[in-house]
Amino acid sequence: MSLVIVGSLAFDTIETPYGRREKIVGGSGTYCALAASFFTQPKIVGVVGEDFPEGILEFFKNKKIDIRGIEVRPGKTFYWEARYGDDPNQRSTLRTEPNVFENFRPQLPSDYKKADIVFLANIDPDLQDDILVQFQNPKLVAMDTINFWINTKPEALLQVMEKVNLYFGNEEEIRLLTEEKNLIKAGRKILERGPFLVVIKKGEHGALVLEKDSVFGVLAHPCEEVHDPTGAGDSFAGGFLGYLDKTKAFDAEREIRRAAVYGSVLASFVIEDFGIERFKSLSPQEIERRFERFKKLVSF
Amino acid sequence: MSLVIVGSLAFDTIETPYGRREKIVGGSGTYCALAASFFTQPKIVGVVGEDFPEGILEFFKNKKIDIRGIEVRPGKTFYWEARYGDDPNQRSTLRTEPNVFENFRPQLPSDYKKADIVFLANIDPDLQDDILVQFQNPKLVAMDTINFWINTKPEALLQVMEKVNLYFGNEEEIRLLTEEKNLIKAGRKILERGPFLVVIKKGEHGALVLEKDSVFGVLAHPCEEVHDPTGAGDSFAGGFLGYLDKTKAFDAEREIRRAAVYGSVLASFVIEDFGIERFKSLSPQEIERRFERFKKLVSF
Repeated sequence: MSLVIVGSLAFDTIETPYGRREKIVGGSGTYCALAASFFTQPKIVGVVGEDFPEGILEFFKNKKIDIRGIEVRPGKTFYWEARYGDDPNQRSTLRTEPNVFENFRPQLPSDYKKADIVFLANIDPDLQDDILVQFQNPKLVAMDTINFWINTKPEALLQVMEKVNLYFGNEEEIRLLTEEKNLIKAGRKILERGPFLVVIKKGEHGALVLEKDSVFGVLAHPCEEVHDPTGAGDSFAGGFLGYLDKTKAFDAEREIRRAAVYGSVLASFVIEDFGIERFKSLSPQEIERRFERFKKLVSF
Repeated sequence: MSLVIVGSLAFDTIETPYGRREKIVGGSGTYCALAASFFTQPKIVGVVGEDFPEGILEFFKNKKIDIRGIEVRPGKTFYWEARYGDDPNQRSTLRTEPNVFENFRPQLPSDYKKADIVFLANIDPDLQDDILVQFQNPKLVAMDTINFWINTKPEALLQVMEKVNLYFGNEEEIRLLTEEKNLIKAGRKILERGPFLVVIKKGEHGALVLEKDSVFGVLAHPCEEVHDPTGAGDSFAGGFLGYLDKTKAFDAEREIRRAAVYGSVLASFVIEDFGIERFKSLSPQEIERRFERFKKLVSF
């Protein structure tokens, strides 16, 4: 089994109705790898500056995350600042400093190239494309992106999309990308562009998993207090892909459904505290208990 | 078994991205009674003008809806005009003419007063209150309302709410009413005001059913073409309450869950065509087939 996650490692300053945290560790790669680590031993690809805390790299190693793909460069780590209002789906980005991420062109360790599953988390689509060609024969390639790239580099994005099997997007991104309001229709449009699987993340409304001939819906855990929504989407992808990597089932419908539920489960935990805090205490037993609660939530 | 539905019968002029229909039959009572008629023999209470089509009253009778509670008055039937954009959840009301509804003070036929289940569909909360006292010993009282009453008569509304067991509301209404963004918290606030059950209708995202100690979520049918969203909420309530009336299970969790799914099923059909058109051809077999598809949609 092998899952390679390409994404950012970052410092985030986050403000939500529950408080403010300055320069805590975040990044799409961080959240995704940590979530996946509950199921498999993910390999991470990314870059950090010399200011990145040694303790976090140690934490990754303790979680059996392979960090040989993390480059440490002179300079400062990627920095991002955002504020959320009462509605966790509405966030304002206040500041972005790419720093060492600016000229990041990763060279993968040779054993990384044999990955079964590749996840291209939100980064410049050109970079996603560059990295993808380095893999030899992945069985499943997944990608994510954000509105910024849909608005500024739509063609580069569509080019990557043609090469991936699984597209993760939130409601807003998928509507923007396809210029289609109806989510099912929008998802089908993406299915026509390459992926055989589209996962539409809908925040508090859960997620939809679309294949050509099937639709699966997973509800969000009924959460009364979203302390920090950051990383929910990446944790969803991490739980989803980590589970698939563990089961080695890359296209079985039953496993894909379960993967989506595990994705939701991991996302539901990460938002309970700021940053990656909740993942520090999270146990496999808690994950299994919540998986069962997701079953109960929809059973009739 | 007996279910009494108090609501409006109306002429609607509707414009959606799929077309425009002038003066077609609608109204909260109409949709609700028709949806319920697939499960039980509902009694309807409302008022129409002399211009209301005899053929529709005949159609109600053929559907085994008891129409003795419909008063025919000199004057014109309630009229409503609305337009929907690409997003079916966004509608603009262009015109409302209460007409004969203005001074409607129904006197219930005596056997109506013994109803097991009473549904107070969206009408003036003072009127809801007036009518409710006429019932002798209902086992389950449900209500619905709209933003208009929440904004203009919040106190009257809260007074009715204290006397009902089940509150149906859509996301927007429930947030407005409770001044709480988080839907689970908002629902719990309503549970503190009287009802033991709150159903939060979320359009394309399905519905949540909240009780004190449980949450149930039902997905919406993945519909690619919403021809006319009018009546979806009332059809949901009709399917829900019709099913409960049929089973005579007024508070069993299992039946409430199934009722919510049937509510979703009926709502998913009515939006496939304008007005009540789809209910004219709908068969019990189609309902059962879609019920099974709702199961498949969430099973993992």
